[in-house]
Amino acid sequence: MAGPRGSRAERAQLAMMLEVTAFPKPGNVDRCHDYASTRLEHFLASAILSRRALERAERGSGGLGSLIRSAVRATSSHRGGNTHFGAFLLLIPLVAGGDIPAARALVGSTTVEDAVAFYQAFALTKVRMLDHDPLDVNNPGAIALLRKKGLTLRDVMAHSAGNDLVAREWVEGFPLTRRAADLLHDHGCGRDAIVATFLELLATVPDTFIAKKHGMAVAEETMRRAAEVRAGTRNLEELDRECIGQGINPGSLADVIIAGIYVALGEGWQWEC
Amino acid sequence: MAGPRGSRAERAQLAMMLEVTAFPKPGNVDRCHDYASTRLEHFLASAILSRRALERAERGSGGLGSLIRSAVRATSSHRGGNTHFGAFLLLIPLVAGGDIPAARALVGSTTVEDAVAFYQAFALTKVRMLDHDPLDVNNPGAIALLRKKGLTLRDVMAHSAGNDLVAREWVEGFPLTRRAADLLHDHGCGRDAIVATFLELLATVPDTFIAKKHGMAVAEETMRRAAEVRAGTRNLEELDRECIGQGINPGSLADVIIAGIYVALGEGWQWEC
Repeated sequence: MAGPRGSRAERAQLAMMLEVTAFPKPGNVDRCHDYASTRLEHFLASAILSRRALERAERGSGGLGSLIRSAVRATSSHRGGNTHFGAFLLLIPLVAGGDIPAARALVGSTTVEDAVAFYQAFALTKVRMLDHDPLDVNNPGAIALLRKKGLTLRDVMAHSAGNDLVAREWVEGFPLTRRAADLLHDHGCGRDAIVATFLELLATVPDTFIAKKHGMAVAEETMRRAAEVRAGTRNLEELDRECIGQGINPGSLADVIIAGIYVALGEGWQWEC
Repeated sequence: MAGPRGSRAERAQLAMMLEVTAFPKPGNVDRCHDYASTRLEHFLASAILSRRALERAERGSGGLGSLIRSAVRATSSHRGGNTHFGAFLLLIPLVAGGDIPAARALVGSTTVEDAVAFYQAFALTKVRMLDHDPLDVNNPGAIALLRKKGLTLRDVMAHSAGNDLVAREWVEGFPLTRRAADLLHDHGCGRDAIVATFLELLATVPDTFIAKKHGMAVAEETMRRAAEVRAGTRNLEELDRECIGQGINPGSLADVIIAGIYVALGEGWQWEC
C-alpha cells in the first residue's frame, strides 16, 4: 500500500500541509498569516485528523458521498470553521481512484445516496451557498427534493458548477487540478513552485469563494492584481496584506492547489529542494 | 479506539504539530524560523509520516525498540535530517502505554532486542553522540556488545542519562514530561501556553542537545538568558534571533514539550483558545 512515494492518504495529507505552509499566498492562511477564527494550526489539525477517512477512500470503502462526509466529520471537531471542505471534494475522488482519469470515472458513477451523504456533510459546516436555492443545504426539504428528482452527487455539482470552481472540477474532469499539477512540474521543486502556481492560477481564474463572499467584481479585481504581481508592477507581500486586510481569501483556488499537489506528488514532483 | 479526544496516535501527531508551530521559541524551528537544512515542513511531514508507527504502538504491536525503529524509518525519507528522534523515544512508550504510569512500566520491561532495534533506528539518523563511547552507535561492535552484556533498552538509556535528558526521562519515569504537562495546564489554552511552558523549562533545565553541540557552558548561559526573558529583563524575540544566529537550538526540551503536550491533551488540555 505504501510504495516508494507513500500511501495515497499520506500524499493527500502532505498536499494539505504543503499548501497551507507555503507563503506568501495573497489572502489565504499561510505560514505567516492567520485569520482571527481560522489559524494555521486548524488547517494542520484538519490534515492530521482526516487520515482515517482518506485511508477509507484509498481502500475504496464506501461511496464518494459517504467518504466526503467521513472526512468532514473527522475534521469538524476543531473550532476553526471550514478548513478543507472544498479540498476533500477534490481529494476524495482522487485518493479513491488514484489519479485524475480514475477520479473522473468515479465521479461519473455517483448515486443519489452520494448526494444525500454530501448534503449531510455540508450540514456539518458553514460553507457559503447562494441564497434562495431550493437545493441549498439549509433548505430542510433539500434532501427530499434530491430523492424525488433522483439527483446524483455529480448532478448536484453540475447545479453549482456555474458559481463554484470546485464543483466545476467534478463536472469538467479536473482540468484546473491538472493545470495546477502541470504548473508545479514547470516551476520546479518545493515551496516557491507552490507560490508561483498559486499566483498563476490567481491571475487567470476568478476565485468563486471570493465571488460568493464579495461579488464577482472583487474576484476579477483580485485576478488583475495578481497579474500585476506576475508582471512585476505590484509587490507580492503588499497584495497579501491588502487581501488579508479586506478578508479577500481565494479559498477555492487553495483547494485546487491542494489537489494539484496531490497529483504532482504522485507523478514524482519533489516538495524538497 | 478514537474516543472523544481522538486516538492516541492522532494526539501524538497533534502534539508534534502544535510544538513546531508554536512561536516564538528561542533557537528552534518554529512557524517563523527554519534552519537551512531543516525546515518547518520537515517537522510537519515527519508528524504526518509517523502515523502508521504510532498506530502500531497504540495497538501494542511490537516491543518499544522495534516501534521506535518503525517511527524513525517512516520519517527518515525526507532530507531534513533528524526531526523527531528524541520525540519518538518519549512518545512511543506513552502511546503504547497510554499514560505516564503505563509508559514507566513498559520502559521497565524492555529487552536486549529492544536495545538492538533502537541501535538500528539510531543508524538511520545522524543524531549526535559523545565520542569514544564503546556503546556509540557508530561503533560497529556496539550491537555485539549489547548482546554480550545483556543490556536492555532501559540499560542503554541509563548509560546515556547523565548527558541526555530524553534518556533521563526513561530512567527517572518521565518527570520533565509530567512537569511540562502540568505547566501547560497552569498556563491555560493554546499556543501561548506552549511558549510559556517552553520558556519555563528552558530557564530551569540545561538542554543536553545544546550541551552536546556547544558544551555545557553554552547550555547554562542559554538557561540564564531564558530566565532573564521570564524576569522581563531580556526580549524574547531578541533571544530567539541570538539563538538562531548561533545555531543554539534546545532540541531536547522540544522533545519533552511534545511529550508534555501529548499527556496534557489526554488530560483535557485545550490547544484551541
